[in-house]
Amino acid sequence: MKMQEEYIKKAEIITEALPYISRYSGKTVLIKYGGNAMNDEHVLKTILQDIATLKMAGVNPVLVHGGGPEINAQLEKHGIKSEFKNGLRVTSRDAMEVVQMALAGKMNKNIVAMLNGFGVKAVGLCGFDAGLIEAEKLMSADGADYGYVGKVKKVNCAVLHALLDDYVPVIASVGVGADGTGYNINADIAAGAIGGSLGAERLLFLTDVDGIRLNEKDPSTLISTISVKEIEKMVKDGRIAGGMLPKVDACMQAIKMGVSNVLIINGTVKHSILLELFTNKGAGTMVVA
Amino acid sequence: MKMQEEYIKKAEIITEALPYISRYSGKTVLIKYGGNAMNDEHVLKTILQDIATLKMAGVNPVLVHGGGPEINAQLEKHGIKSEFKNGLRVTSRDAMEVVQMALAGKMNKNIVAMLNGFGVKAVGLCGFDAGLIEAEKLMSADGADYGYVGKVKKVNCAVLHALLDDYVPVIASVGVGADGTGYNINADIAAGAIGGSLGAERLLFLTDVDGIRLNEKDPSTLISTISVKEIEKMVKDGRIAGGMLPKVDACMQAIKMGVSNVLIINGTVKHSILLELFTNKGAGTMVVA
Amino acid sequence: MKMQEEYIKKAEIITEALPYISRYSGKTVLIKYGGNAMNDEHVLKTILQDIATLKMAGVNPVLVHGGGPEINAQLEKHGIKSEFKNGLRVTSRDAMEVVQMALAGKMNKNIVAMLNGFGVKAVGLCGFDAGLIEAEKLMSADGADYGYVGKVKKVNCAVLHALLDDYVPVIASVGVGADGTGYNINADIAAGAIGGSLGAERLLFLTDVDGIRLNEKDPSTLISTISVKEIEKMVKDGRIAGGMLPKVDACMQAIKMGVSNVLIINGTVKHSILLELFTNKGAGTMVVA
Amino acid sequence: MKMQEEYIKKAEIITEALPYISRYSGKTVLIKYGGNAMNDEHVLKTILQDIATLKMAGVNPVLVHGGGPEINAQLEKHGIKSEFKNGLRVTSRDAMEVVQMALAGKMNKNIVAMLNGFGVKAVGLCGFDAGLIEAEKLMSADGADYGYVGKVKKVNCAVLHALLDDYVPVIASVGVGADGTGYNINADIAAGAIGGSLGAERLLFLTDVDGIRLNEKDPSTLISTISVKEIEKMVKDGRIAGGMLPKVDACMQAIKMGVSNVLIINGTVKHSILLELFTNKGAGTMVVA
Amino acid sequence: MKMQEEYIKKAEIITEALPYISRYSGKTVLIKYGGNAMNDEHVLKTILQDIATLKMAGVNPVLVHGGGPEINAQLEKHGIKSEFKNGLRVTSRDAMEVVQMALAGKMNKNIVAMLNGFGVKAVGLCGFDAGLIEAEKLMSADGADYGYVGKVKKVNCAVLHALLDDYVPVIASVGVGADGTGYNINADIAAGAIGGSLGAERLLFLTDVDGIRLNEKDPSTLISTISVKEIEKMVKDGRIAGGMLPKVDACMQAIKMGVSNVLIINGTVKHSILLELFTNKGAGTMVVA
Amino acid sequence: MKMQEEYIKKAEIITEALPYISRYSGKTVLIKYGGNAMNDEHVLKTILQDIATLKMAGVNPVLVHGGGPEINAQLEKHGIKSEFKNGLRVTSRDAMEVVQMALAGKMNKNIVAMLNGFGVKAVGLCGFDAGLIEAEKLMSADGADYGYVGKVKKVNCAVLHALLDDYVPVIASVGVGADGTGYNINADIAAGAIGGSLGAERLLFLTDVDGIRLNEKDPSTLISTISVKEIEKMVKDGRIAGGMLPKVDACMQAIKMGVSNVLIINGTVKHSILLELFTNKGAGTMVVA
Repeated sequence: MKMQEEYIKKAEIITEALPYISRYSGKTVLIKYGGNAMNDEHVLKTILQDIATLKMAGVNPVLVHGGGPEINAQLEKHGIKSEFKNGLRVTSRDAMEVVQMALAGKMNKNIVAMLNGFGVKAVGLCGFDAGLIEAEKLMSADGADYGYVGKVKKVNCAVLHALLDDYVPVIASVGVGADGTGYNINADIAAGAIGGSLGAERLLFLTDVDGIRLNEKDPSTLISTISVKEIEKMVKDGRIAGGMLPKVDACMQAIKMGVSNVLIINGTVKHSILLELFTNKGAGTMVVA
Repeated sequence: MKMQEEYIKKAEIITEALPYISRYSGKTVLIKYGGNAMNDEHVLKTILQDIATLKMAGVNPVLVHGGGPEINAQLEKHGIKSEFKNGLRVTSRDAMEVVQMALAGKMNKNIVAMLNGFGVKAVGLCGFDAGLIEAEKLMSADGADYGYVGKVKKVNCAVLHALLDDYVPVIASVGVGADGTGYNINADIAAGAIGGSLGAERLLFLTDVDGIRLNEKDPSTLISTISVKEIEKMVKDGRIAGGMLPKVDACMQAIKMGVSNVLIINGTVKHSILLELFTNKGAGTMVVA
Repeated sequence: MKMQEEYIKKAEIITEALPYISRYSGKTVLIKYGGNAMNDEHVLKTILQDIATLKMAGVNPVLVHGGGPEINAQLEKHGIKSEFKNGLRVTSRDAMEVVQMALAGKMNKNIVAMLNGFGVKAVGLCGFDAGLIEAEKLMSADGADYGYVGKVKKVNCAVLHALLDDYVPVIASVGVGADGTGYNINADIAAGAIGGSLGAERLLFLTDVDGIRLNEKDPSTLISTISVKEIEKMVKDGRIAGGMLPKVDACMQAIKMGVSNVLIINGTVKHSILLELFTNKGAGTMVVA
Repeated sequence: MKMQEEYIKKAEIITEALPYISRYSGKTVLIKYGGNAMNDEHVLKTILQDIATLKMAGVNPVLVHGGGPEINAQLEKHGIKSEFKNGLRVTSRDAMEVVQMALAGKMNKNIVAMLNGFGVKAVGLCGFDAGLIEAEKLMSADGADYGYVGKVKKVNCAVLHALLDDYVPVIASVGVGADGTGYNINADIAAGAIGGSLGAERLLFLTDVDGIRLNEKDPSTLISTISVKEIEKMVKDGRIAGGMLPKVDACMQAIKMGVSNVLIINGTVKHSILLELFTNKGAGTMVVA
Repeated sequence: MKMQEEYIKKAEIITEALPYISRYSGKTVLIKYGGNAMNDEHVLKTILQDIATLKMAGVNPVLVHGGGPEINAQLEKHGIKSEFKNGLRVTSRDAMEVVQMALAGKMNKNIVAMLNGFGVKAVGLCGFDAGLIEAEKLMSADGADYGYVGKVKKVNCAVLHALLDDYVPVIASVGVGADGTGYNINADIAAGAIGGSLGAERLLFLTDVDGIRLNEKDPSTLISTISVKEIEKMVKDGRIAGGMLPKVDACMQAIKMGVSNVLIINGTVKHSILLELFTNKGAGTMVVA
Repeated sequence: MKMQEEYIKKAEIITEALPYISRYSGKTVLIKYGGNAMNDEHVLKTILQDIATLKMAGVNPVLVHGGGPEINAQLEKHGIKSEFKNGLRVTSRDAMEVVQMALAGKMNKNIVAMLNGFGVKAVGLCGFDAGLIEAEKLMSADGADYGYVGKVKKVNCAVLHALLDDYVPVIASVGVGADGTGYNINADIAAGAIGGSLGAERLLFLTDVDGIRLNEKDPSTLISTISVKEIEKMVKDGRIAGGMLPKVDACMQAIKMGVSNVLIINGTVKHSILLELFTNKGAGTMVVA
């Protein structure tokens, strides 16, 4: 009987998932989502729904997000033009104020509202709150001045521990300098540092590609596991470049801070988070020590 | 792409299951299994594996079992012939000693060993232990003497609470009289009383039929939900009879003790426990107040 | 000897303060600050320093703030003109987005940074976070449509309890509708509702006047204690009007929710918070049941 | 006055006992009882009553028992003849099944019922439960095959810790192999291993002799204290032999696991347990490091 | 064998005592000792040793004492003559100072030192400490002025609860007035009030007679149990009089405060405390509701 | 406006005090007071009121006191003449009894009553209680026999920890010998030993001078901070002598036991305790490592 078989299959999928669910119960899973992918509201909603599902299943997800196209839109409204040096947006004081409002005031709180709509209680924070992300000015090797672009100096994650059990922390990647000034921080780097500091059970970088490929143009060359050493070689070779660079940097930093499971997966694939966490066959590229 | 679809389906089954898993986490689920069905070692093993899976997923299962054909086999070895009155085995003192050894000494401990083999820690008890099932002689309406056949007088489930978090209690349906004598107790009745006393979240009676049918011979007349009142009417009509009688009695007793979810499901259907607990569409017949 | 006398006086002030300090130790004190007064950075800093001092002395302050002139400035930058009806800013969807960014993204986080600079750990929230301020559209009596101006429907202060012991919560008065939309909420009203829901020991409304006056123009007519009934009479008489109205409304609401100590004091007077809390002679107008 | 003197004597005995009672309060005392001595129901009852008295006085007794003559009786009923090699019963698969039923199903549960009759709550376990006694096949030096005679591989006493405070654990000396098969285990050896693993305060081996004698036939040669070294010498000399051998083996094993107080006393002497534990002058032979 | 019989008897006494010991474990037993009996240092030491034994056996004894002959001796040294009215010592301010020093400074601390010598940790208090015994001037019916003779107004036993688990509180019966003045309080009355306030499991009044007698001169008329009503009748009849009066008053007060077991026993009988608490046949006269 | 300025000054004093109050919250501050200074009841009351204020502000003060002139008065009343050797009172057995009564029975309990009058709950102890101050006979270098003058052998401060949170311990400096005899102990030395054993946050020696002076006669030579080494030098030089000697000895002992803040201040200056603890500019002489 076909019905019967289907039921048995269903039960087998659940049986496969149960030990994973039990394993992640009460554990912290850090998810980084951002960039262009955030523009697609349908994808964003599916991801937030999966995060809410995780929370309701007893896992403690933490979301770190960047701003993506929203920042451009807001800067444009304020009539601020962006100059780029070495691929980084040179951020003036005025621009930084707009970045802060767009990230911590609009996107962050809107994500919070969406998560709450899926039945969990989310709390939106940025690097200012309880000194979560202490930052300092990023100095370029070639003397270029990026303005208020910062790098992570220290993560103070105590406030996350106070919230983790009952709430879903959502963190906008804005850092705070020693004098209280805001800094624009790469969200991948922020996520790696926070995940490492939290001792997260697993770090998931949601991107719009399936993972790292030996040949970026050829999907069949997807790497399922890669070591820090191999990454360093591929970076030197130039085979890993562009937007993938901060992601692999963040992976490597988290691994150095003791997180054993760091993954780059395709956030645009429906339910990729659940499949990665709760099935035998994961997805994307796992970065290992 | 077929692969992709299959993955999405998998994730959807997990998404469906997650809220149920969370709901049953740390809750007690009492499972009664026994009778002829126990003879099929393959079915028994599948059921025990599902119970072990439950435990590993954070649910607290309790198993109550009867003896089934093993009792007959042991009585035969001891050369004790069984007389039946009103469908009940008249149990002499010698017979009771054999029943106790077969149930509490052989079957109970063998089930414990099998469960342990699936990675959990089971503890085998009978009604003697910490006075778990206080029993008294069952008096028949027509003056027939059933010997050491008993009925449940009181359940003392404190010892189960001491074990529930870390162990899977496995309970042989032997009761103990005020003077320390053993009594042969119907396992369905024992299960209903223990489930009620524990305040179990759910009671599952595993049988070898799919549930209660309007017409016992016609599978298409399976009842998915039935009230206590309707059962009482069907019993009066004689439409519920035989081995189904103690089951529905036990269901009704448990409901009167405040358990809201009592189910009669087919234990011979693979993974019926998991499907019942963790999917939208349950199985078998649910008895409600 | 003059020195001696001065020391004794010092000790007497401390002796006077000690029982108050002990009384407020571990208790919640809600402080509302906002409006035009926020424009004066010097006053703002003095107030925040006093709040940090409170925290370091073992009191648990919570700050609720509105936006004041910053909202106007941002709306202007976005080229949005404000229309007013019945003294309320009609807030379009676009305007609301700007209000949210200005309040929750800029002012809130900047206050957090300033407080952190005074040695405490502040956390910035708005009504979106963990559903802190559930709002609904404010309907006018005369059919006027205020757009996204809301009123408080419910306060969910659990997230504040999770933070109160170790952090200083700073709350921007933005509410969230059932569908996740932001609403512009009067900060006095928000403060009254949050204080009542928290069961705050004391509510302090910091304004730029010394309290309620019998004759608004005459400082010598300052009322030191006033009952809810008397306020209602003065409102009817029109002697309380304008910006003082939402303040007294908020006072009365908090009193109805069981807060016994509600005060309107002059935030521009240096250390008015400390004097009010820790000396025999308080300041401003106390509103009582 | 005679009455007076008797009272004073009574008070002095209590005064003597009180510090011991206080010393054993909440401590674990493991008692091994078995062998032929178990046949005398009067002696058995007196011993169980003393154990119940201990429990009610705040001590945590654990009872380990073997089967004695009951095993022979049951094997006979099943028509199984026993062959002995090197003094050990060669145990076939069928014989082992009978041993398991007789020990874990009959004797164990009957002892539990008797203890409950004395006002405590006993729980009957065997080596299967929660993997309490992991066993493996005992290999003989001379190539003889003893069948399902086992030796202790590991004791997992966590389940005892869960029960000790409120219950009296009663343990039948049946072990479980890696594949779930039962093994016949010498009860003295089992007791020594469990006592050592529990870190019992004291181990009492109840036998039908007063202790170890220099000359087994001469009661006046009773040894009150003996070291492990001296025992080893007496075993080599053949002065300790027969049923006393596993007892002294068990004593020595327990001592090596850190138990400092191991005693061989005469269980047939009324109240020997209480006298040993609660009076200045103990009884029997104490084995020391 | 005589030896054997003696041992069995010993064990039976212990068996008799064990349930009592368990019953009093962790419970408070208040003992009042004082008056002339305190003069006999041998008796005093025996009693203190029994109290220390109680503590080491897990009972929580509290000792309340008066001053007896010591007060007379000290007053004499200070050249203060005592006048008596209605059997009460008229206590001048100077006399009270001496009483306070003799009771709280000498006797109390010496008892503490003796108890410590028996291996427990005693703490000496009087009614001043933490306001333990609030007192007020005792007014006579006939207008006589007793000076600083007080009656108990209120017992504040919180400080005893802080000490009971680890220490033996020893309390001198000096009360404190609202203005900090000391009052001379009858020790029996103080003991009854403290015992009632503590909810003591049992109150023992140690005297130098065996209990209440129907005929004070005839030891054979000792009453083993007497009700409050019967006492009241005997007081009215004048059959209870003199020093026995405050004792029965204290008994009755304690019973009204809910203590069910109040006893008057002979402290000069060796080990009378232990016999009363730990044997079937108590001693002295029990006062019941 | 003058009023305004005064208020601001008040707030500034409170602001100055708040961090100190928070710092001492829940911490132990040991205060030694005694000697001639105790004779002035007005000064004593002011000091006790400050101690009560401390307790109500969340600090845990402990008071150690000596006897001062009271001892002389009592000895005189008993007609005991005092002989002095090397500046120490030779204390006969009879004298010791009087000392004990005067210190532990009169002064200690009167101080307790006064403190209770200021709204706290004080408990009076001496070295006897729970073996708080174990003492032994003080042997002189020159063979002089001081009788019952003792030195501190060991401090057992567990009983203080049991009382510290809710009560103010007041300790009379009487020690107890191994045989239960009382010893007359210098109160400064007792205070140093108790403070060290408690790990007190701060030790305050209240004297009637402002601190240590380079030139004892010249107030302008007051030393504000002095090291142990410098003290030793001044003692050798004879510049520190007389009653200041045991004080500096006690300071040095406490410092060696790990207390970092030890101060000698003038108790006759009103509120010197509060000024020392809660203002930037302390008072007296601080002794440091």
